[in-house]
Amino acid sequence: MFFASDNSGPVHPKIMQRMMEANSGYAMPYGKDEIMEEVREGIRKTFEAPNAAVYLVATGTAANSLALACYTQPWQTIFCAQYSHIEEDECNAPEFYAGGAKLTLIPTDNKMTPEGLAAAIARRPADNVHMAQAGPVSITQVTEFGSVHSLQELRALTAIAKDAGLPVHLDGARFANAAVALDCTAAEMTWKSGVDVVSFGGTKNGCMGVEAVVFFDEAEAWEFELRRKRGAHLFSKHRYLSAQMAGYLQDDLWREMARSANAACARLAAGLRANGAEMIHEPQANMIFARFPRSVHQQLHASGAKYYVLDGDVALVDGDEMLAARLVCDWSMTDALIDQFLSHF
Amino acid sequence: MFFASDNSGPVHPKIMQRMMEANSGYAMPYGKDEIMEEVREGIRKTFEAPNAAVYLVATGTAANSLALACYTQPWQTIFCAQYSHIEEDECNAPEFYAGGAKLTLIPTDNKMTPEGLAAAIARRPADNVHMAQAGPVSITQVTEFGSVHSLQELRALTAIAKDAGLPVHLDGARFANAAVALDCTAAEMTWKSGVDVVSFGGTKNGCMGVEAVVFFDEAEAWEFELRRKRGAHLFSKHRYLSAQMAGYLQDDLWREMARSANAACARLAAGLRANGAEMIHEPQANMIFARFPRSVHQQLHASGAKYYVLDGDVALVDGDEMLAARLVCDWSMTDALIDQFLSHF
Amino acid sequence: MFFASDNSGPVHPKIMQRMMEANSGYAMPYGKDEIMEEVREGIRKTFEAPNAAVYLVATGTAANSLALACYTQPWQTIFCAQYSHIEEDECNAPEFYAGGAKLTLIPTDNKMTPEGLAAAIARRPADNVHMAQAGPVSITQVTEFGSVHSLQELRALTAIAKDAGLPVHLDGARFANAAVALDCTAAEMTWKSGVDVVSFGGTKNGCMGVEAVVFFDEAEAWEFELRRKRGAHLFSKHRYLSAQMAGYLQDDLWREMARSANAACARLAAGLRANGAEMIHEPQANMIFARFPRSVHQQLHASGAKYYVLDGDVALVDGDEMLAARLVCDWSMTDALIDQFLSHF
Amino acid sequence: MFFASDNSGPVHPKIMQRMMEANSGYAMPYGKDEIMEEVREGIRKTFEAPNAAVYLVATGTAANSLALACYTQPWQTIFCAQYSHIEEDECNAPEFYAGGAKLTLIPTDNKMTPEGLAAAIARRPADNVHMAQAGPVSITQVTEFGSVHSLQELRALTAIAKDAGLPVHLDGARFANAAVALDCTAAEMTWKSGVDVVSFGGTKNGCMGVEAVVFFDEAEAWEFELRRKRGAHLFSKHRYLSAQMAGYLQDDLWREMARSANAACARLAAGLRANGAEMIHEPQANMIFARFPRSVHQQLHASGAKYYVLDGDVALVDGDEMLAARLVCDWSMTDALIDQFLSHF
Repeated sequence: MFFASDNSGPVHPKIMQRMMEANSGYAMPYGKDEIMEEVREGIRKTFEAPNAAVYLVATGTAANSLALACYTQPWQTIFCAQYSHIEEDECNAPEFYAGGAKLTLIPTDNKMTPEGLAAAIARRPADNVHMAQAGPVSITQVTEFGSVHSLQELRALTAIAKDAGLPVHLDGARFANAAVALDCTAAEMTWKSGVDVVSFGGTKNGCMGVEAVVFFDEAEAWEFELRRKRGAHLFSKHRYLSAQMAGYLQDDLWREMARSANAACARLAAGLRANGAEMIHEPQANMIFARFPRSVHQQLHASGAKYYVLDGDVALVDGDEMLAARLVCDWSMTDALIDQFLSHF
Repeated sequence: MFFASDNSGPVHPKIMQRMMEANSGYAMPYGKDEIMEEVREGIRKTFEAPNAAVYLVATGTAANSLALACYTQPWQTIFCAQYSHIEEDECNAPEFYAGGAKLTLIPTDNKMTPEGLAAAIARRPADNVHMAQAGPVSITQVTEFGSVHSLQELRALTAIAKDAGLPVHLDGARFANAAVALDCTAAEMTWKSGVDVVSFGGTKNGCMGVEAVVFFDEAEAWEFELRRKRGAHLFSKHRYLSAQMAGYLQDDLWREMARSANAACARLAAGLRANGAEMIHEPQANMIFARFPRSVHQQLHASGAKYYVLDGDVALVDGDEMLAARLVCDWSMTDALIDQFLSHF
Repeated sequence: MFFASDNSGPVHPKIMQRMMEANSGYAMPYGKDEIMEEVREGIRKTFEAPNAAVYLVATGTAANSLALACYTQPWQTIFCAQYSHIEEDECNAPEFYAGGAKLTLIPTDNKMTPEGLAAAIARRPADNVHMAQAGPVSITQVTEFGSVHSLQELRALTAIAKDAGLPVHLDGARFANAAVALDCTAAEMTWKSGVDVVSFGGTKNGCMGVEAVVFFDEAEAWEFELRRKRGAHLFSKHRYLSAQMAGYLQDDLWREMARSANAACARLAAGLRANGAEMIHEPQANMIFARFPRSVHQQLHASGAKYYVLDGDVALVDGDEMLAARLVCDWSMTDALIDQFLSHF
Repeated sequence: MFFASDNSGPVHPKIMQRMMEANSGYAMPYGKDEIMEEVREGIRKTFEAPNAAVYLVATGTAANSLALACYTQPWQTIFCAQYSHIEEDECNAPEFYAGGAKLTLIPTDNKMTPEGLAAAIARRPADNVHMAQAGPVSITQVTEFGSVHSLQELRALTAIAKDAGLPVHLDGARFANAAVALDCTAAEMTWKSGVDVVSFGGTKNGCMGVEAVVFFDEAEAWEFELRRKRGAHLFSKHRYLSAQMAGYLQDDLWREMARSANAACARLAAGLRANGAEMIHEPQANMIFARFPRSVHQQLHASGAKYYVLDGDVALVDGDEMLAARLVCDWSMTDALIDQFLSHF
């Protein structure tokens, strides 16, 4: 009963199979392998972006940090939601890659708000040499709390960025889960909504360790290549990154896995509600934030369930303390495991 | 006929098998997986270093840069051989990770010399605030030109570093090839010879993409963990790095593969010599630098052979230009391919 | 009528005189000048800290950034008040000098609160490799809004830092104004209250451009010297920095000038209140934040008065808009100028 | 008898006078002072460059590092002579400001050679992602060994840079001494010879601490301003930097002082030669590198003479060891001091 994260499940057999098939003879290193050509075409087709620059790295933090660095000067600040992954969970990697740039946190308990973004940008006039200058806007889709920006919401944010002349990055560690939730295309969720560069996540959704960074403007391509190498993220045996991503794209496996994960999450959420759990955020993709009694937590813990209990978020309901849990489903989650989990309520 | 690099061959089937076996159910992420415990013990046993701090990353440049950064202040300089990988082939990654430190190149056409190292250190007195301060010494074993420092040579270098109070890093991208060439233990080639931290390479020797960074002094451990995360090199699905390294260590597969590579290289070198090629450096591991006539290069090229021709290194012998080639053998190189290559002479 | 900042007034004649006196013959460069010895002893006596390490730089941002960098690792975050100078007015200099570290803003409209600081530190457990680690606490005295932490308030903050094992930096760009306001010694406001390093400002208080960085623990001394040189802040003709600071310390000129500035501010504040202006913060040193009618602003502007009008802070009182002004007095402010300013009400 | 450096002499009285005159009333801070307008026009006229972007900083290392940073990407390398100031005497400041870029040393015992520069650039093809990329060329005029590039020599170097598309920086810490030595204009020695940005030194030539950074292409202006602020090199009481530079430019005082320094140097060199000293480099500006007997060094030392003896440069002539000395004259050096120095031979 592992609900701690979608970064802990197995690799999908079809992706494993592609890696096995790639393991024969010699291949050109450093991204010159033939499979990468397939990947490049696959991404361009998937995103309806025939001129996109496409690169692979092995971690989500690398994808975010390198993509942002291409759009950030060291004297700028990156606008992001208060609890975004780049602020909370990357140990200053974005600052490191952007040469000491700052992150400006838009106050929110979940999604970045247009008002918050506009106010933060307005505080940084372009001619004030004393202040960190306005830099790119980074939006997380799915948010860290399992919510999905609608296309309208996305566009409201990117419009503010565009008005201020600022580029937009999309942290798509759970891109697939969001696209499935919105039932929209990859293009609609990115360049058609004003996104300039996306971290298109694979690792959390059934790959071994691969993320695509997709620039819709080719101008950043060579800089990205140099930054990737300088960051030590250019793989010599790159074909195994390519093979993962090729398998991920083939027959829209990325969507299929996300559908499984989201469906599992919906089943779990329904069961939790039926048992009186309180949703802190409405689960829209593959993550649940819910409160339920300490006694249930104890039983789950005793039976080996793994998930995060959120510090400090405790409420009393009818004499039993309610503790908040984060529960995440990946593509491999089964109905049996969910039902086993729910049986402890 | 791929002799361009040992970073382009396939993964050994036993390592692939370990990765497949690891692909079941959930595993703790970020290096907390159980296989990593096996790896840690395996490395400690292999290096006879029961307290070593052991970490995995996916690229050699990451291993070198992160290891060196733990021993380098931004106002220091790293001493290395003139044509070392950290100077020539890492696109300022060492400088990036070390916060803007410098590299001081010890003049040499191959191995770092004790005289060169001593002179370079002597130019940097400890109390001169104007100059970059003396920092760690980084030695490459096997060198970039296929030579192997004897244990005596290693110790002569580390003794100079120790006298100056400087830590020693060993770039062991081809550690296995050197250990086999010297017929020595991993301990003898590292801490028993004065090395403080080693990049123990797997990628060039039959792994998919894994390098161990081994600190013989645990004091650097937590800093390394933070640097690795901040550099975006901490893998969530870490078990697949662990599985590679576990397979690499098991039954000394790392030595077995290096023996194959070195033997292939020796066969190729013997054949080249028999055909009149001139060795630029004595091949001691799995790399050959040799000159042979342009006409042979042309035939090899026409028949699809892949290897680097060295710019500018041209000599005339008996009316035919002699061009220098770099030829590298990995574990998977076959006698048949070597003989096919030699047939063009 | 220049009330825009205390960084725009003239240098005190006694300090100018010391610089003139220093301008004779040759002097050892880079801080080895004899006047620096006088400064070192003067600072140590003033701060009752016979072992303090004392350094001079020419700008407040250099003092803050270099002092903080000595106590900050690149993977850490510096805790500071929301609107502190290091966050708002230094264009990422602290991040630059600290190698890409983060600033964590303690929410407040003026002084850092102990509750806010404790909560921010509590969010960063020492064993979470994913998060920026807790780094130093930087307190601004006088605050950016003209308030002065009492010694009790200071100690409440430093106690929280000490409990968490974190070092404390005091941004004392207006140190003198605070010391005079509290009628306390330099020692009481620093190491006796738990401060580890202070930026002891001279520039805003009658010097030309000099700030002392005073470490109460000598261990950071050599690192500071290297960081200062590497930051290009080590002056060759250092005697002219020394001469300023020597003049500043002599006969407590620094206190005398701060008393003048604070008294001028008090006179101005009394006059403003008498004319119906509303104080946004209680002026405790040499800065006033006050609201008064737009019509008065217009008259002042027409007559050449210089000061900042704060964007966005507008209230309506009795039909006339009230706009917020920041008014700052330096040591050279005269009663006549203040009365001239007030005459427009 | 102070011949250790031209950074240790007094400030010229005319410059001191300008600073005194500036010390009245309030002035706009941060480079918005009126004297800076005079400086800007003065520099533009002096350099015959009506559109030049002109900035002041207080140290030569700041001028060099900030100027270079505007033309260097972190994955590039700066080409400079082997013993240049930016390599030897700035404690990694150029690397720091350029975000971890590298310095590539052109082998030479004095001036950068066109052959050396061309060879170094040729080793860095534009499409090799593994290598540090070619960045700006930095030329030092006067060299660290007291030599002056002729205009032809300068142009030979800049032509190679231009052919490779690389910008050119001139480290003009002793710009005035070179211009006087060549009897050429400031324009001839900079943009008319292919220089894109110059550090126009004042500190070593009679100022207190001021250097102008002059960009002949305005495009870098705003980036420089942000880099200067972020580096903590933007002075609030900027008028005192402006006043120095205004005095320096007025009536070509900069040339007058350099003529004095060069003439003093010539007198000293003639005297040394007459006494049998051996010139290591031909002194062309205000620095001498000469060998003379240890016994003379001892007498000079005993009588209080200050200058650098060069480590390791020792030769035996007629039974007495010859030790190398560096002797520098600034504008204030008198014939009496020179004769006193020579009297010890």
